[in-house]
Amino acid sequence: MKHPPAYYADYLHLEQILNAQTPRSADFGQPAHDELLFITVHQVFEIWFKQILHELDSVRELFLGNYVDEKNIGVAVSRLERISTIQEVMIEQFRILETMTPLDFLEFRDFLSPASGFQSVQFRLIENKLGLRRDLRQNFNQIPYEKRLSDAHQSLALKSEQEPSLFELTQKWLERTPFLNFGNFDFWENYKKAVDTMLAQDRQIIEQNPTLTDEEKTRELAQLSRTIENFQALFSEEKHNELVRSGARRLSYTAFKAALLIMLYRDQPILHLPFRFLTALIDIDELFSTWRYRHSIMVQRMIGTKIGTGGSSGHAYLKNTVDAHRIFLDLFNLSTFLIPRSALPPLPEEVQRELGFFFGSHH
Amino acid sequence: MKHPPAYYADYLHLEQILNAQTPRSADFGQPAHDELLFITVHQVFEIWFKQILHELDSVRELFLGNYVDEKNIGVAVSRLERISTIQEVMIEQFRILETMTPLDFLEFRDFLSPASGFQSVQFRLIENKLGLRRDLRQNFNQIPYEKRLSDAHQSLALKSEQEPSLFELTQKWLERTPFLNFGNFDFWENYKKAVDTMLAQDRQIIEQNPTLTDEEKTRELAQLSRTIENFQALFSEEKHNELVRSGARRLSYTAFKAALLIMLYRDQPILHLPFRFLTALIDIDELFSTWRYRHSIMVQRMIGTKIGTGGSSGHAYLKNTVDAHRIFLDLFNLSTFLIPRSALPPLPEEVQRELGFFFGSHH
Amino acid sequence: MKHPPAYYADYLHLEQILNAQTPRSADFGQPAHDELLFITVHQVFEIWFKQILHELDSVRELFLGNYVDEKNIGVAVSRLERISTIQEVMIEQFRILETMTPLDFLEFRDFLSPASGFQSVQFRLIENKLGLRRDLRQNFNQIPYEKRLSDAHQSLALKSEQEPSLFELTQKWLERTPFLNFGNFDFWENYKKAVDTMLAQDRQIIEQNPTLTDEEKTRELAQLSRTIENFQALFSEEKHNELVRSGARRLSYTAFKAALLIMLYRDQPILHLPFRFLTALIDIDELFSTWRYRHSIMVQRMIGTKIGTGGSSGHAYLKNTVDAHRIFLDLFNLSTFLIPRSALPPLPEEVQRELGFFFGSHH
Amino acid sequence: MKHPPAYYADYLHLEQILNAQTPRSADFGQPAHDELLFITVHQVFEIWFKQILHELDSVRELFLGNYVDEKNIGVAVSRLERISTIQEVMIEQFRILETMTPLDFLEFRDFLSPASGFQSVQFRLIENKLGLRRDLRQNFNQIPYEKRLSDAHQSLALKSEQEPSLFELTQKWLERTPFLNFGNFDFWENYKKAVDTMLAQDRQIIEQNPTLTDEEKTRELAQLSRTIENFQALFSEEKHNELVRSGARRLSYTAFKAALLIMLYRDQPILHLPFRFLTALIDIDELFSTWRYRHSIMVQRMIGTKIGTGGSSGHAYLKNTVDAHRIFLDLFNLSTFLIPRSALPPLPEEVQRELGFFFGSHH
Repeated sequence: MKHPPAYYADYLHLEQILNAQTPRSADFGQPAHDELLFITVHQVFEIWFKQILHELDSVRELFLGNYVDEKNIGVAVSRLERISTIQEVMIEQFRILETMTPLDFLEFRDFLSPASGFQSVQFRLIENKLGLRRDLRQNFNQIPYEKRLSDAHQSLALKSEQEPSLFELTQKWLERTPFLNFGNFDFWENYKKAVDTMLAQDRQIIEQNPTLTDEEKTRELAQLSRTIENFQALFSEEKHNELVRSGARRLSYTAFKAALLIMLYRDQPILHLPFRFLTALIDIDELFSTWRYRHSIMVQRMIGTKIGTGGSSGHAYLKNTVDAHRIFLDLFNLSTFLIPRSALPPLPEEVQRELGFFFGSHH
Repeated sequence: MKHPPAYYADYLHLEQILNAQTPRSADFGQPAHDELLFITVHQVFEIWFKQILHELDSVRELFLGNYVDEKNIGVAVSRLERISTIQEVMIEQFRILETMTPLDFLEFRDFLSPASGFQSVQFRLIENKLGLRRDLRQNFNQIPYEKRLSDAHQSLALKSEQEPSLFELTQKWLERTPFLNFGNFDFWENYKKAVDTMLAQDRQIIEQNPTLTDEEKTRELAQLSRTIENFQALFSEEKHNELVRSGARRLSYTAFKAALLIMLYRDQPILHLPFRFLTALIDIDELFSTWRYRHSIMVQRMIGTKIGTGGSSGHAYLKNTVDAHRIFLDLFNLSTFLIPRSALPPLPEEVQRELGFFFGSHH
Repeated sequence: MKHPPAYYADYLHLEQILNAQTPRSADFGQPAHDELLFITVHQVFEIWFKQILHELDSVRELFLGNYVDEKNIGVAVSRLERISTIQEVMIEQFRILETMTPLDFLEFRDFLSPASGFQSVQFRLIENKLGLRRDLRQNFNQIPYEKRLSDAHQSLALKSEQEPSLFELTQKWLERTPFLNFGNFDFWENYKKAVDTMLAQDRQIIEQNPTLTDEEKTRELAQLSRTIENFQALFSEEKHNELVRSGARRLSYTAFKAALLIMLYRDQPILHLPFRFLTALIDIDELFSTWRYRHSIMVQRMIGTKIGTGGSSGHAYLKNTVDAHRIFLDLFNLSTFLIPRSALPPLPEEVQRELGFFFGSHH
Repeated sequence: MKHPPAYYADYLHLEQILNAQTPRSADFGQPAHDELLFITVHQVFEIWFKQILHELDSVRELFLGNYVDEKNIGVAVSRLERISTIQEVMIEQFRILETMTPLDFLEFRDFLSPASGFQSVQFRLIENKLGLRRDLRQNFNQIPYEKRLSDAHQSLALKSEQEPSLFELTQKWLERTPFLNFGNFDFWENYKKAVDTMLAQDRQIIEQNPTLTDEEKTRELAQLSRTIENFQALFSEEKHNELVRSGARRLSYTAFKAALLIMLYRDQPILHLPFRFLTALIDIDELFSTWRYRHSIMVQRMIGTKIGTGGSSGHAYLKNTVDAHRIFLDLFNLSTFLIPRSALPPLPEEVQRELGFFFGSHH
């Protein structure tokens, strides 16, 4: 044998893992049956967080540098999809925790004070590495998040703020996309024409909708005006940058356009994996948002309006983060600017050839 | 054979069911592959809605009248738990719909106008029968919900508002609970003492927490004051009724107290199924809330900030209903008032006997 | 504060937990990205196994002794249902492991030899504590299961074989059920009459089924004869014991009858929680069976027909255990002997009173 | 508006859909509450079956003809992944059906006779279109499956046997893969060398494993011999064809080799989507297998060993189909022949260029 033999329990460090559950209720002489569940569920979350960080770091590494090898997009997609699968299981895991009733939680809740999930450095690292910006964070009780961490964890967290996040790396990769300029093919001009036609139709749908009252029409036309403004921002770098300053957009103008182009022409073989990459980011964002929502409602169920184990009303804070801590909202908003394939300017044949695969015989 | 033979396809009316998918994109000469999925997913939702209504109606019927047969609590719990299981599958079902990309949706989206999920009468019936009060409804574009329904469906919906809802029937059942008065045992006085002790401890935890700044302490003590106010409302019918008027509570004072007692003494055999009944209501509330959240984020993903198929921005409306349309929030808030079993006033032995089962030999 | 403060990372022993992943591929200089996932998934399984053992042991403890306090049935049901919820999440977890492709597994598979899941002592303990009998075990490569464990684990496993299993404790509890004899009410005689009527109808259904050929009828009548034989065993302790000796049944005659009675009269309040208890055992059995099935197919997918990391073809072995290692098959088979409520002998009123709850006013 | 307005209830044919549940227990004067659930669950399954057939037919169409446009692989993968997502939800759906207890089923079971799921033509079409061969089918009670269907459905089923199945189309597509011959690069010779090295190591692992007894070694070496035989079949078309004749393989020699090559070199951009295509087939096979397993165990739970609604013991039949009706087992078995990336013969640079994407600047 090339390697010394491995044994299951040693390989998995089971002694270390399975001796790490020490209920405080027992330590203080009032053993509560359900405290083990509480510990177990949180430890499993942390193990999954470590795995998510492992995948996240590996994808970030693939996107560092000035060039992303085409081979790596497939690898990155697989790893991001793995994160989504883990997230789906983590969301289901709340069902396990909710088999503990509030009354059973109460049996040991006081012993935990002031420990709190806010002290999870790994979750903060995930947020930072995905791209949650410091200035967009909800702070719990107005205390900067890192102040709740130990010194060593504070350093880790602050360091992760300095490293390029998945958001930033994705943005750079999008900005480098070579597809925005194809020789003589003027994508934007053709796209703009198609959009103008479509918006005119939308206006017509509202104006001629027999079920709407005048008041409703006024309201919906006002809404359409906002949509038109959105599109104008798409065709004007200056207006886009205003939206960025106001917080309504985050991606740079070039990156936003590149992402839109990928979404529109994703049927081209060369754009298919980039399309899956962006979709995987959307999935992750949606699933963290759902996870936070489930978390907040579980906390409400468990402790009502009483102060949390960390000495505070966690439910309201957690609910605020559901929307505020989303990272890739711009990718959701791309849907606003899609136009039907039938309205899409067709790619000239030489461009299509560029976007396909060539077999030996072509050359 | 006692009955004429049944055949699978006839029994399930499969011809009727499987011929009911008629994509409009095909009707208008531009067949879009994914429209069938869109139809299918919505039809399946509606079939589940019918099943949920079937269970809901049957449980409401069990709770009509002046007395709920003890036998029926078990039946009711099973049927409510069935609703939860259906809801869990319905939430997963969004994953199926999300395999359709926004670009694919766009291929047929215009053909659907102005159809919209807001026109689902069954969902409105579920909301009404659970107990969503007309004055608490979020109205989409300020139009009363029933105005979006056909005349026949309007009548159904308005009629369901007049019928006793599950919320109301639960309230009446709770108000009738015989457990609030047990001869000489003064539950409330003992409970109040236990609460006072606990709140004093909570204050101590905050005041002596070395990790809190003065500012934090002030904030948390203010929060504790609100908790104390909550408890005061629990001990004063007048204050409880003020909370009801302000919208912070909905259950009557007596019902609220009865629900709390069930939660606290659920280990008593006779209270175990009532406890499961209340827990099932909490689950249903949580799962509809989660369903709405998933729905809202799916809509955002699918259409960005553009107007919905019904001519309007559905995402924002749907997100508003996530919290506003919750029915059994009072049951979540009960957790605020739980005290540990160890602090619970013990039931006198003769009361415990009343709450247990007796076998022949006892008599 | 009554207790010294707790901090999240200390309380959960995160340093210990999160430093327990040491990929061997890295140790041997060929780091494979996916090995962390492999370790993580197995560690999480083991943490859940510990939690399952915690619940299992607590339920077994509740059922030790000569009397099971009625209060404890509700507690036992909740804990068994928690096990089911954990199992459901554990089954989903295979989806995470399957995001690792066979080719990625190959990058580190050789380093693991001869470690194998067969060396998981916790899984063996779960099997033994549920009630898997030594003589019914499938042995992998004809080696007794405990020979694959370390000495310390061997002792644990063998000791658990000696302790009363959940199967045995359930059997004893069923045997003590007081409901089999109700004064003058002869349940079995009435039940037997109802069964005879039903079987006669079943015979008629086959004989008069116009879609069956003579050959089919012969076959189905032969099958009915086997059903009748089953029923005969129900009415004869001697025949039941023959079935036990042959392995077709495992529960004692009295326990089997008691379980059947609980299933038939579960609408009686006092039998409702016992009914839920038996249902929870069925769920656990079904879910372990499904878990084993998913495990076996995952192994097949990962390594094809090649020998496993433990030096052997695990897939075939695992598939054999799917059926062979089921514990509560008798409870599934009870369905064979159910008769419709309408055919059930009605309980005399004084018996019903015994099975209900009484409030103060009755006395 | 370009199109007449659509209304939700009309568009979804809700009147048709929601009036198609007619419980027979009510028709025969003995309404059973749970029959609606039984109908609902089966109708939803059939609606999903229709959706699966829609996706399956569309993928088969993309693979008809002599050439599969590279663009279509991405489309096919998305549609097959959609089928998997539907299957996952369908498997969860059994949890809903299992909220019906066997006793509740009995309330209406007799009214259903002899209707049975064996009469589902859509499920037979799915099996045929995936590629279940007539001679490999398990027949229930030795009656050919189509004999249980109505005349119209029989024709549909038999016709589908004649059409090219997904299995056959995949095989043809694999056989056409241009990657098996790359100018001077002799893939097979290099691959064979790598395999020989690996098998020699496997032998060493067994021979030097200190934990194995002589008897075990003999057994495992015998097993290794079978593995070696497998590999020999991979290097000999004649032996492969023998395996096909014996039923151990189904794919043609060329297709099998092409599938292996795709699995081994899937990191090459051009092979990434083909790899995902094969993976999607594996997922579908695994999920139908799991669905069948869950189905069989649900039937056992519901009716024990009694004859099914179709007049027969469905449980045993269903369990037989779990393995026998698998279609893409060859793709699972490919894992047997994978070798680590590090042992893979590296592709010459000009071959790699062929397998990558080229941007304009390269030319």
